[in-house]
Amino acid sequence: MIDLYTAPTPNGWKASVMLEETGLPYEVHAIDLMKGQQRAPDYLKINPNGRIPAIVDREEGNFAVFESGAILIYLAEKTGKLMPADAKGRSTVIQWLMFQMGGVGPMMGQANVFYRYLPEKIDLAIKRYQGEVARLFGVLDARLADHQYLAGDYSIADIANWCWARTAAWSGVDTDPFPNMKRWIAEIAERPAAQAGIKVPYDMSALLSSAGSSKEEKTDAFVKQARTLVNTGDAKE
Amino acid sequence: MIDLYTAPTPNGWKASVMLEETGLPYEVHAIDLMKGQQRAPDYLKINPNGRIPAIVDREEGNFAVFESGAILIYLAEKTGKLMPADAKGRSTVIQWLMFQMGGVGPMMGQANVFYRYLPEKIDLAIKRYQGEVARLFGVLDARLADHQYLAGDYSIADIANWCWARTAAWSGVDTDPFPNMKRWIAEIAERPAAQAGIKVPYDMSALLSSAGSSKEEKTDAFVKQARTLVNTGDAKE
Repeated sequence: MIDLYTAPTPNGWKASVMLEETGLPYEVHAIDLMKGQQRAPDYLKINPNGRIPAIVDREEGNFAVFESGAILIYLAEKTGKLMPADAKGRSTVIQWLMFQMGGVGPMMGQANVFYRYLPEKIDLAIKRYQGEVARLFGVLDARLADHQYLAGDYSIADIANWCWARTAAWSGVDTDPFPNMKRWIAEIAERPAAQAGIKVPYDMSALLSSAGSSKEEKTDAFVKQARTLVNTGDAKE
Repeated sequence: MIDLYTAPTPNGWKASVMLEETGLPYEVHAIDLMKGQQRAPDYLKINPNGRIPAIVDREEGNFAVFESGAILIYLAEKTGKLMPADAKGRSTVIQWLMFQMGGVGPMMGQANVFYRYLPEKIDLAIKRYQGEVARLFGVLDARLADHQYLAGDYSIADIANWCWARTAAWSGVDTDPFPNMKRWIAEIAERPAAQAGIKVPYDMSALLSSAGSSKEEKTDAFVKQARTLVNTGDAKE
């Protein structure tokens, strides 16, 4: 049994999609970021960085793993799934996983902060990050022009990049110039494990569309809350 | 023989320090970022992301590896050095490596852009990134309070984080609040491989201190050049 500590974000979904793909039994523990549960002392013993996701592998003496990219590699090695065993195949998967960890994720994250969360609209910063995201999407698109998946068979490299790329609209980046990436996003979206994984720890998309206030009002409320999580250098945690 | 394509940056130094540590023979190919050599068609065949570093392993049919984190894992697995073989030890190293790839590196990179390279001084962005770097340094410092190295013995996790953390002054972040991190930075700086690795592809520090114009003038000239590499969303490459 795996304990999964997570919240409905692209990094969180990487872990839940992977757990769904592998078929490993897991128990979900929702971390309420707005309440600062990621900074609770007990949670920092699992993830010293105070971020989600993290897992604890009960079968391995409660071994804890933090950083979404490390969770993907750990689960792939534990199950022998979604990463080849040969050195070159493994490395190719890890290269495209690192591309997401060091590029797509951080740059989309910054685009979200400046485009979506900060009340101050700093045009240079918004354009910088959206421009960098578009550049990275171009790299994915070129790769996917002659490859069905990023690194051989469907792998943890696809899971990592897909969980972010599918949220391009939230970062305000148009995917129309990237038809090969769009094809790949749509293809992975058909996978039952992907569909189940992105509803963990709860189905935020359904929540935003549910009865009550309009989706726009709910989105605004979400953005206002999320704003409190942005490090603007003022907050001393 | 390994071909190393690199430039004098923290990501580049990860690869050269690792090659020095392993003792693998390698040939350096300096990529002139100011001249855009990272975007040359032949280089994009090695690194489709158009960044440094990248390596080509001639012994393995000219197998190319891009992304500094993937290079570290590849070379560790090739040589059996600087990463344990057991599942938990390996994972712990990969967790702290991912912490650098997804956190320390991107956030210090953004701090450099807003604090150092952009002519526009956007206080909110400077404080945001310097604040996030300080938060991440706090995580490293807490870890190093009761661990000599980040993940067991000296490993690729230390190389990755050290190559960035040692450049804190360039990002305008004070390391005095992080005495354990400072102890670890100083300790690794004594290693011959670290000293040799950070002089690849050339000794930029010596260059800045060499005869001719003052170090300040040379630094200014460097910053002005580097500015052209910052994606502000305007440049269409």
